Amino acid sequence: MLVNCVAYQNGAKLADIPKEDISEYVKRPDCFVWVALKDPTAPELEEMREEFGLHELAVEDAQRGHQRPKIEEYGDSLFAVLHTAEVDSSGMCTGEVDVFVGPNYVLSARMRTSKGFADVRARAEREPHLLKHGAAFVFYALIDAVVDRYFPVVDELESELERIESTIFGRGNARSNIEALYALKQKVMTLKHAVDPLMESVGKLYGGRVPGICKGMQEYFRDVYDHLFRMHGTIESTREMITTAIQVNLALISLSETEVTKKLASWAAIIAVPTLIAGIYGMNFKTMPELEWRYGYLFSVIFMLLADVLLYVRFKRVKWL
Amino acid sequence: MLVNCVAYQNGAKLADIPKEDISEYVKRPDCFVWVALKDPTAPELEEMREEFGLHELAVEDAQRGHQRPKIEEYGDSLFAVLHTAEVDSSGMCTGEVDVFVGPNYVLSARMRTSKGFADVRARAEREPHLLKHGAAFVFYALIDAVVDRYFPVVDELESELERIESTIFGRGNARSNIEALYALKQKVMTLKHAVDPLMESVGKLYGGRVPGICKGMQEYFRDVYDHLFRMHGTIESTREMITTAIQVNLALISLSETEVTKKLASWAAIIAVPTLIAGIYGMNFKTMPELEWRYGYLFSVIFMLLADVLLYVRFKRVKWL
Amino acid sequence: MLVNCVAYQNGAKLADIPKEDISEYVKRPDCFVWVALKDPTAPELEEMREEFGLHELAVEDAQRGHQRPKIEEYGDSLFAVLHTAEVDSSGMCTGEVDVFVGPNYVLSARMRTSKGFADVRARAEREPHLLKHGAAFVFYALIDAVVDRYFPVVDELESELERIESTIFGRGNARSNIEALYALKQKVMTLKHAVDPLMESVGKLYGGRVPGICKGMQEYFRDVYDHLFRMHGTIESTREMITTAIQVNLALISLSETEVTKKLASWAAIIAVPTLIAGIYGMNFKTMPELEWRYGYLFSVIFMLLADVLLYVRFKRVKWL
Amino acid sequence: MLVNCVAYQNGAKLADIPKEDISEYVKRPDCFVWVALKDPTAPELEEMREEFGLHELAVEDAQRGHQRPKIEEYGDSLFAVLHTAEVDSSGMCTGEVDVFVGPNYVLSARMRTSKGFADVRARAEREPHLLKHGAAFVFYALIDAVVDRYFPVVDELESELERIESTIFGRGNARSNIEALYALKQKVMTLKHAVDPLMESVGKLYGGRVPGICKGMQEYFRDVYDHLFRMHGTIESTREMITTAIQVNLALISLSETEVTKKLASWAAIIAVPTLIAGIYGMNFKTMPELEWRYGYLFSVIFMLLADVLLYVRFKRVKWL
Amino acid sequence: MLVNCVAYQNGAKLADIPKEDISEYVKRPDCFVWVALKDPTAPELEEMREEFGLHELAVEDAQRGHQRPKIEEYGDSLFAVLHTAEVDSSGMCTGEVDVFVGPNYVLSARMRTSKGFADVRARAEREPHLLKHGAAFVFYALIDAVVDRYFPVVDELESELERIESTIFGRGNARSNIEALYALKQKVMTLKHAVDPLMESVGKLYGGRVPGICKGMQEYFRDVYDHLFRMHGTIESTREMITTAIQVNLALISLSETEVTKKLASWAAIIAVPTLIAGIYGMNFKTMPELEWRYGYLFSVIFMLLADVLLYVRFKRVKWL
Repeated sequence: MLVNCVAYQNGAKLADIPKEDISEYVKRPDCFVWVALKDPTAPELEEMREEFGLHELAVEDAQRGHQRPKIEEYGDSLFAVLHTAEVDSSGMCTGEVDVFVGPNYVLSARMRTSKGFADVRARAEREPHLLKHGAAFVFYALIDAVVDRYFPVVDELESELERIESTIFGRGNARSNIEALYALKQKVMTLKHAVDPLMESVGKLYGGRVPGICKGMQEYFRDVYDHLFRMHGTIESTREMITTAIQVNLALISLSETEVTKKLASWAAIIAVPTLIAGIYGMNFKTMPELEWRYGYLFSVIFMLLADVLLYVRFKRVKWL
Repeated sequence: MLVNCVAYQNGAKLADIPKEDISEYVKRPDCFVWVALKDPTAPELEEMREEFGLHELAVEDAQRGHQRPKIEEYGDSLFAVLHTAEVDSSGMCTGEVDVFVGPNYVLSARMRTSKGFADVRARAEREPHLLKHGAAFVFYALIDAVVDRYFPVVDELESELERIESTIFGRGNARSNIEALYALKQKVMTLKHAVDPLMESVGKLYGGRVPGICKGMQEYFRDVYDHLFRMHGTIESTREMITTAIQVNLALISLSETEVTKKLASWAAIIAVPTLIAGIYGMNFKTMPELEWRYGYLFSVIFMLLADVLLYVRFKRVKWL
Repeated sequence: MLVNCVAYQNGAKLADIPKEDISEYVKRPDCFVWVALKDPTAPELEEMREEFGLHELAVEDAQRGHQRPKIEEYGDSLFAVLHTAEVDSSGMCTGEVDVFVGPNYVLSARMRTSKGFADVRARAEREPHLLKHGAAFVFYALIDAVVDRYFPVVDELESELERIESTIFGRGNARSNIEALYALKQKVMTLKHAVDPLMESVGKLYGGRVPGICKGMQEYFRDVYDHLFRMHGTIESTREMITTAIQVNLALISLSETEVTKKLASWAAIIAVPTLIAGIYGMNFKTMPELEWRYGYLFSVIFMLLADVLLYVRFKRVKWL
Repeated sequence: MLVNCVAYQNGAKLADIPKEDISEYVKRPDCFVWVALKDPTAPELEEMREEFGLHELAVEDAQRGHQRPKIEEYGDSLFAVLHTAEVDSSGMCTGEVDVFVGPNYVLSARMRTSKGFADVRARAEREPHLLKHGAAFVFYALIDAVVDRYFPVVDELESELERIESTIFGRGNARSNIEALYALKQKVMTLKHAVDPLMESVGKLYGGRVPGICKGMQEYFRDVYDHLFRMHGTIESTREMITTAIQVNLALISLSETEVTKKLASWAAIIAVPTLIAGIYGMNFKTMPELEWRYGYLFSVIFMLLADVLLYVRFKRVKWL
Repeated sequence: MLVNCVAYQNGAKLADIPKEDISEYVKRPDCFVWVALKDPTAPELEEMREEFGLHELAVEDAQRGHQRPKIEEYGDSLFAVLHTAEVDSSGMCTGEVDVFVGPNYVLSARMRTSKGFADVRARAEREPHLLKHGAAFVFYALIDAVVDRYFPVVDELESELERIESTIFGRGNARSNIEALYALKQKVMTLKHAVDPLMESVGKLYGGRVPGICKGMQEYFRDVYDHLFRMHGTIESTREMITTAIQVNLALISLSETEVTKKLASWAAIIAVPTLIAGIYGMNFKTMPELEWRYGYLFSVIFMLLADVLLYVRFKRVKWL
């Protein structure tokens, strides 16, 4: 679905243009075209391929979808695959944005993602001094928008970890903690697959041999790289803390097992000792003097209670109870 | 076994040729020969070595089989070892494809693999504009076909992990989950050994010093690299999730041990307390007033039941039962 | 909040200057300006941006705060983000110091940190032969001060680990040890995120292509790098020892579980055997010769005691008790 | 001990020569000398040092023995340390082979290893067209022989892992499996120390700056590298599978503990319930109507059996028995 | 404390000189000065700084002590920090040796270490042909001596691991094994911090851009590097085996827990079954035919014994006892 198709000149909007005219505007050296697609069909992509003269393999990748994040050079144009990530009630959902960038055009196609890039276009049109940089600036603005939208996801993961950490030493949460840690790990791995390859690719846009299109924008791309690197750091330490938390959880479960066994042993003793005493006075020997005593019964019960009080105090002291 | 032996000219099939004529066609600068072998014997390989003028060490490797995936240069020709992977009912089975590529020939020998490359040849013959690139294109098409066939395997591994993940927090599956995780790990390691070295080798066909034969096809090999890199990412995260799943499983088993011990302790108490009471009234003291009471027996049984109800409620409240 | 705003010439203080005059002093080639801010507001930063001519992206980063530690070049000026770390009673707290360095100015802005850099300025003013180096020396002095303040934190972490290590093989501390290890791990990860990226950045100030400003000060920055590298080593080995300590702790908990079970089993036997004997002599058979004996009761009790002494000795010998 | 001392010319054996003549033959540009030592003494090595003009440090290393695998350049000669590995009934035993290679000599000294290199010499003498390459070819042939002898060791390790894997999910093998896994890990580490440093060293003989002696033999050394790399891969994945197998084993042990506890609890209940019933009818209340019934005893026993059957069925259903 | 202060010329000792004359001898191009300090005070170091013209930062580092191992260039001189390691009865103790090396001087300062370098000086003076190389040779000799003293420590660690390995599968050593493994890990980490950074630093003295002073001595420094690399390998594999041993130990503890539980369950059954039988014949039913039998008591006891023999045999067969 075509969302927008606009030609720009000197940092200002020229006109909404019909898609058939794209190839003409692209030929004019002083202006550039910015097209946005949403869940494009194969014929739409084919049409774009012809209008913009895109590389066959790049278009094939965009058609297939489910590519890893990457930024590739095809001659003097770039093809970028970005993953979007959003947290909603049911967990984390991811989408894909494919961007084709040439000297005077930008074509973005977003897939499986609800939120568009209308705000990016609006902000770009409000800043003509930056939009003058042309396709490279739009490319930066799109990547920057995608990366900025990772931040709430990263924050959500961090606060989820903190929530688990705050309950991990409480009792009775072991099972739900394990489930939460596993679910968190899954989300972290998904985000990692969005962030890490992109970080690597963006790193090539500001250091070493920079693609021609991106010349003069290096400091902007370094800024994006920086944000990605920060997320990378957070993701790595979240992964490590999850592993530690699972180990700690296991230790706590084992500890709780020991405590249960101690309690079991203590109460077993407290019940078994009077049972033994009762058993003894239940024997049928002819001559058992205590049985004849007047307060024999009372004494025996007092004896049982005494034994139990002793045991109880003792178990309390060694912290078995 | 010789499967095919065809000479091509200008992207079109010239003729099926007898293998004795190979060396003649290879000498003609305008055409190239594409030969496919299946489970070749040593004499067959020796014959090919002479016809094509292959390097001794490469042929030796092909004869021995069981090589690691690699792409090696011998002068202006290439020798590639690829592993194939297929999932069938009994697990994962792997085969090997050895490819010799020269300026105007391609010789492929597949071993221990049921599926051939007839479809690759058919598609190549349908696209003369690509087949014109000659040996390099055929080489790309073969690698691409092998790599494309990894995708269902990767998908199968991922969905197997998901299947395990969906049962891991259920009860009573611990043993089968452990077995499934271990079996999955074995398959992942096998695939890793097919993918990782190949990824490394293909990376050298598009970046840095590219072998002469592959010049002009870099973007195609980068595409293959990209697919391999994506699989590599999936394999790595599957490995990591398996490790986490085994740890989580262990924690769940320990947890279940604790729950069993709690149940054991609870029921032991519920049986032991009335046993003690019965023991007390089984004592043979002369003077035990309760024994004389009319409803003494009834009272004692009621007392036992009451104690048990109390215990039961208490254990329910602390979640031991 | 503006803390200081001073102009220096030839290594000596010239004057406290009003912030409106900054841009004038910065233009004079023979002197440099050193400004210190504390928790600056957006307008304050904007004003500084104009006076010093700072780069937009750097100021944006400083406004947003929560950047990762880094040192970035913008033309011939540098922008550094440093994290401060302090240990207080409630744990570890971290702050941020952003430093803008140009050929003849240094602007530092510290956030969320109680301790300022007045001592750095005082020491610098006492050493005119070093202050003559200008902005680069002040930059070094600030980084050096931040890094030096990490040392007590690192020492605290190390001594905390030692404290845990000294109690880990004692009994009854398992739970508090686990909690302490987890809390220590959290602090280590926080410090790691301050130290590692800074180490990487400082490494670029003395080796390879050194930024123009830092020329001639390489040996000083290598010294800072060295301190960071030493901390990095300590942090890595602390991480590793924490992991080992958690594993060891788990093994000790499992061991203690076994010991408890052994005790439980031993005492259960010691109580159950006389209970069985008492049960036997509680049977109601007509003909049970022992029941008629005069010392039958005595013998039976002696028999019980004997059995228990035997069991006790045996359990002691196999170390179950 | 001197094993062989032979001079070669144009790929053919010239003569067995006395060791005193070595230095003369070495000076002749058209022939080369190949000497084999076994467990050489210090004086023997000293003598060789003088005849061949070997470097002091290399000879010192050879005298001391127990060096790590390495290939070092000393001027235009090479000094290589190789580890041999063999599997015998008592486990794995390792030896050492030190090789000195110069433009026209090869001196090999093997230590603590039963198997010599007579077959390498025999094969080399049968292939004059290869032996013509001189010292470099002999050097290749020796390394190749050592590396080829690793293969049965690697295979043995792999089949040992498979043997353990096939019993790991069986019952009652936990202890022997742990012992076997630990022993396997020890062997893997030993082999790793032979393979990894050698792989790294051989890698320098075919890529980058190749030592003068090895020029023209790169493809042969790459072949050796390839074999080492394949072993390296196998070793790494064996290590990883051992770790996983130990984790899996631990989970299975914990699981088996839970199953034992379940059985214990079940049978305890099945015995305790009739004990309680018997206890109740053992009470001495005056008025207990059941005691007077004719079939009271029978009923009570039937009651006990019924209760047990119910419990048994229930425990079977929840898989505790 | 000044230990030695000697001037050398052409590889031979010239004279013991007073420290005030150092600066004069250092100026003479044909001789060099070798000074040894022990636990130097700040004024002593200050004096040396003036005599030799040492760099301020290097002297500061030496004064502060507790530096990481490193070798740094200051102009045409080097500053090295080495850690010494010795094993004594109370564990491992470490010291520090700081070495300043200039074109014609060597100043070594050792701290917290009992053993000096008198033997190094003695051996150097016995080998004038090597001492002629001047400061670089002395520098090599000192590093070589420090590194050679690591070997007994490494051997001690290895044999300690072997000692633990030999008892790990025995019974009843779990706790002491855990403690020994943890203590071993601590020592390994300490040694690792001495060896790894030094290895990295020494690596720069023979490959790539070698400092001027060390020219011509590369093969000697490579030899030291080699020894360090070998230790590095041993340390890494010791670390890995410790981790595996802790895991194995945990598995063995869990296994032993299971065995204890099995024994507990078996003996509980063997006591509980006759207790139940005794309970049944202790019931007070009017009509219990067995009670009237003449050998009823005998039969009941035989019945109990029979049941126990059956249980015992059964438990033996399933290996619970």
